[in-house]
Amino acid sequence: MVLNLKDIEQMELRYRATLINSLAGFRQAVLIGTKSVDGHSNLSIFNSLIHLGANPALYGIVSRPDTVRKDTLKNILETRQYTLNFVQKSDYEKAHQTSAKYEANVSEFEKAGFTEEYLNGYKAPFLKEAVVKIGMKLEDTIDIKINGTILIIGSIQSIQLNENILGDDGFVALEKENVLISSGLDGYYSTEFVGRLTYAKPETWPTIIS
Amino acid sequence: MVLNLKDIEQMELRYRATLINSLAGFRQAVLIGTKSVDGHSNLSIFNSLIHLGANPALYGIVSRPDTVRKDTLKNILETRQYTLNFVQKSDYEKAHQTSAKYEANVSEFEKAGFTEEYLNGYKAPFLKEAVVKIGMKLEDTIDIKINGTILIIGSIQSIQLNENILGDDGFVALEKENVLISSGLDGYYSTEFVGRLTYAKPETWPTIIS
Repeated sequence: MVLNLKDIEQMELRYRATLINSLAGFRQAVLIGTKSVDGHSNLSIFNSLIHLGANPALYGIVSRPDTVRKDTLKNILETRQYTLNFVQKSDYEKAHQTSAKYEANVSEFEKAGFTEEYLNGYKAPFLKEAVVKIGMKLEDTIDIKINGTILIIGSIQSIQLNENILGDDGFVALEKENVLISSGLDGYYSTEFVGRLTYAKPETWPTIIS
Repeated sequence: MVLNLKDIEQMELRYRATLINSLAGFRQAVLIGTKSVDGHSNLSIFNSLIHLGANPALYGIVSRPDTVRKDTLKNILETRQYTLNFVQKSDYEKAHQTSAKYEANVSEFEKAGFTEEYLNGYKAPFLKEAVVKIGMKLEDTIDIKINGTILIIGSIQSIQLNENILGDDGFVALEKENVLISSGLDGYYSTEFVGRLTYAKPETWPTIIS
């Protein structure tokens, strides 16, 4: 079937939001941990993590300023510290529950049944149950004027993971931890390995990296 | 294991690139189709597709201006048209081969063993073998000054998919098509459904959407 611009524009709002969001495909599910200046912990699920570069190591997150995730955004801007945490697929209900509209002084760690953890001198909380924990420092924000979203750019300060998922060439085999991924606002998935391929060159066909 | 900022900064360049890229998690594999002003078709794999908003329907792509993908970027800027194509996991070698450094006048469609398709009055080529085909129009570009990358923002003009993956509420169940996803620059995966959950509310626990 083909949906053209007119079809898309005439869709009921919630239907279109669900369609356009899920159509963007599968994304890493990331739980962002922050702490407010007055000491309240916050944990919220995002699926807009972007790799921007490795040298320096920079990741982006897209956020709307007017959503349930505004506490996370406020804490990042005020404290410049946040943590990125990946959980296993078995924790998908807990991860989803962090998207509920709790008051700013309520800890989503507690409400979702997760545990706060403090590591590496960081003031922002990590998620103890996470299998990958990344400490971030805010570097810049960019206003995306066309629809009022914000790109939050941070540099990686620390990485914590099980060393058996880190390969000799630096590749992180997240599938070995059954890491949770998502699609749209409420679809949860895990992954199945297909293969890693050698660097593509015009004159040859890629082969599997064993 | 813990890697701190000093460990990260001291890594060998390629090792760090592999680590930081794969650590960002799983992403949708997207093949971008473009046509140059002088009529050469181009197809290149990306994994930086970002959902920016549904009203209007906007997706972003992050690109470096100085990479193998510069033909794609040039064509998008010059023609303002491009297509997003999702393939099945069985096409992962072909998809990867589009990342090879072919000359600008060489069609990656042909070299990778794919077929061009023209739909809905679009001048940019779609990928015939793709299970999801999205026609895009360039709306804006944003320079990410901190590391010289570019955020390409486009609006969705058309969507083509098999109607049996589009649910009554607008959710696109891409897993039913065994859609290819990726991690890092060379890791390929498919997905396994875990569950869809009801809208999260503070006072209740989410349940599975059947």
